[in-house]
Parts: sequence; structure tokens; C-alpha cells
Amino acid sequence: MTKAELQSIYRDYIACLNKQDWPMLACFVDNDVRHNGNQIGLAGYRSMLEANFADIPDLHFNIELLVAEPPHIASRLHFNCTPRGKFLNLNINGANVSFTENVFYKFHDQKIVQVWSVIDKTAIEAQLMADSDRSDA
Amino acid sequence: MTKAELQSIYRDYIACLNKQDWPMLACFVDNDVRHNGNQIGLAGYRSMLEANFADIPDLHFNIELLVAEPPHIASRLHFNCTPRGKFLNLNINGANVSFTENVFYKFHDQKIVQVWSVIDKTAIEAQLMADSDRSDA
Repeated sequence: MTKAELQSIYRDYIACLNKQDWPMLACFVDNDVRHNGNQIGLAGYRSMLEANFADIPDLHFNIELLVAEPPHIASRLHFNCTPRGKFLNLNINGANVSFTENVFYKFHDQKIVQVWSVIDKTAIEAQLMADSDRSDA
Repeated sequence: MTKAELQSIYRDYIACLNKQDWPMLACFVDNDVRHNGNQIGLAGYRSMLEANFADIPDLHFNIELLVAEPPHIASRLHFNCTPRGKFLNLNINGANVSFTENVFYKFHDQKIVQVWSVIDKTAIEAQLMADSDRSDA
């Protein structure tokens, strides 16, 4: 798989998530996919994403930076959204938050077999703190 | 700059950090470096790292995964260390914690000009919670 092919597959995967086209997910994600060390499998992966969209109705994945070196791709994703209730154990309650996720993927046979994701919780906390300071003023 | 050259420079940069060889930092980091959107410059970058080692005396950078596509490199770093007091606004107080950082770098003329870093705070919180549950038992 070339670098260009990998980037193209990845962009199609992100488009699939943004369309919430769950039947298509199997074209991009391996049956035995591992996420942050846990073998959650395709069904677990789909459940995780469906829960994300239920908790954050305006969730949209924006690719800010892509670094591809087959079989790996690293992506910096940007989000600007309004989680309904809790997110990462923080009380968001419909506030608008903007944050990033730095995430690595390993591909095999054109499908994602491993994901290592870190979300910038510190950035979200800083925004909630600033909002709370403003409402205290 | 080839992929192999970039990876080699990056590994030398990480060795420089682990040796705390601050005079050498200027060989790897640009004078006008930006970190998570802030132009902190070489002096600010060095201060940040010196503060990290002061707060975490056994700090050691371990490269777990590297993805290189010049001029960018993405690195998954692993840490196993014992911060003295607070870290990411969490009360660590000498507990041993294990966590990762997913970080992107942009190079120019063989030096780092931009860094986008996210540390897995959620993983550290989970460890502190487990420690506290054990001590409550």
C-alpha cells in the first residue's frame, strides 16, 4: 500500500464516520480491531462511535494534519462541538467546546487493525474553566 | 530531508532530552519554535523541559511508535515516572504513573519549528483512582 493510497483510504474512513454510514465501517475497520490496547472488535468499535454521536449530536471529524508511513498513519483531528452531558467525565452540558485528538492507526490489508488515541482533555478543562470564570464575573 | 534522516535526527533529539543536554537543544529546536500554538521560542522550550525534569526527576522519554513523512514526524511517547507534586493539575505526590503522549512535529532545515502535543491525562486519572480505591479497601 502506497502512502497516497493509505491517505486516500483514511480520508474515506473519516467521510464514512461523518456520514455515520455504519454498514460501510466494515470496509475500513478490521473484525479484530484493537483500540488503546483493548480488542474491542468491529462491533465494539461501531458501538463506541454510535455512543459518541448519541452523546455529541453535532460531532464532526476534521482532519487537521496527516502523517502517513505505511502501514501506519498519524492524524491530528479537530472537533468543535456541543456534548449534551458528560464527556471524558467532565460536565459539558451543552457547552460548545473545541479540542483536538492525536491518533495513530495501523493498517493491514487496507483496514484499521490498531488505534492509539489521545484526546486533549486539558484543553477542554481550560475552556470550561474560562466559561465558569466569565459567568462568575 | 529523507524519512530515514528525519527519524535519525528525531532519535538524537530524544537522546538529547534524556541526557538533559540543554546546550545541544539548539541543534534540534528552532529559535522561533511554536508549541501547541504558542510561539515560546527556544528559550521557552528549554524552560518548559527543565521545569518538567524538576517536577519529575525520573522523567525519561521512550519512543513507542514513529511515523515519518518529511517535513513531519509523529511520535507516540511512553512515560513511566513519579512526579513529585502536581502534574497536569492532578495531585500525583510521588505516585508512580504510566502514560503516553501522542505528538506531531514539523521540521524545517533539520530543526523542530512546530509541536502539537497531547498527553493522556485520562489514563493518569484512572491510575490515581485505582490507587485511591486500593487504599480505601
